[in-house]
Amino acid sequence: MSLLDYFKTTKPNSAKLAKERLQILVAHERSERNQPSYLPQLKQELLNVIRKYIQINQDDISVNFESDDEQETLELNIVIPEQPQS
Amino acid sequence: MSLLDYFKTTKPNSAKLAKERLQILVAHERSERNQPSYLPQLKQELLNVIRKYIQINQDDISVNFESDDEQETLELNIVIPEQPQS
Repeated sequence: MSLLDYFKTTKPNSAKLAKERLQILVAHERSERNQPSYLPQLKQELLNVIRKYIQINQDDISVNFESDDEQETLELNIVIPEQPQS
Repeated sequence: MSLLDYFKTTKPNSAKLAKERLQILVAHERSERNQPSYLPQLKQELLNVIRKYIQINQDDISVNFESDDEQETLELNIVIPEQPQS
């Protein structure tokens, strides 16, 4: 199963809500334990890039960071506010 | 099952290879069909950000983009070159 399949299996539920959502996952598999992690810093830069494309508030973003010896995962979940009707 | 769990189930295999890898997934669930997609443009900007943290060649990156009416998914898989011993 690929990650793309995973996203597909989650789709029907979210489509029902008719919300726009953006999810970003960054997974880093390290070959050595004692390397510095750049994911926390990377997070802010990713958010800056996304803000160029969509207007989001800090409140609309939830961030999850998990780390163990070999793997770090950064998860950003963004609920995109409804656009005003023009 | 969360996406984080998915990453965990794939770990043993990749750890065996002792490679460093970075995987980025961007999933966008749209509430309307005819919106412009910003993911292709976002891709290049994400790569520019990552290049600030790690040295990667264009050849080390594979990109997958899938799109249907409600969902777009951008997948970046990056194999991080081994660092020279210092």
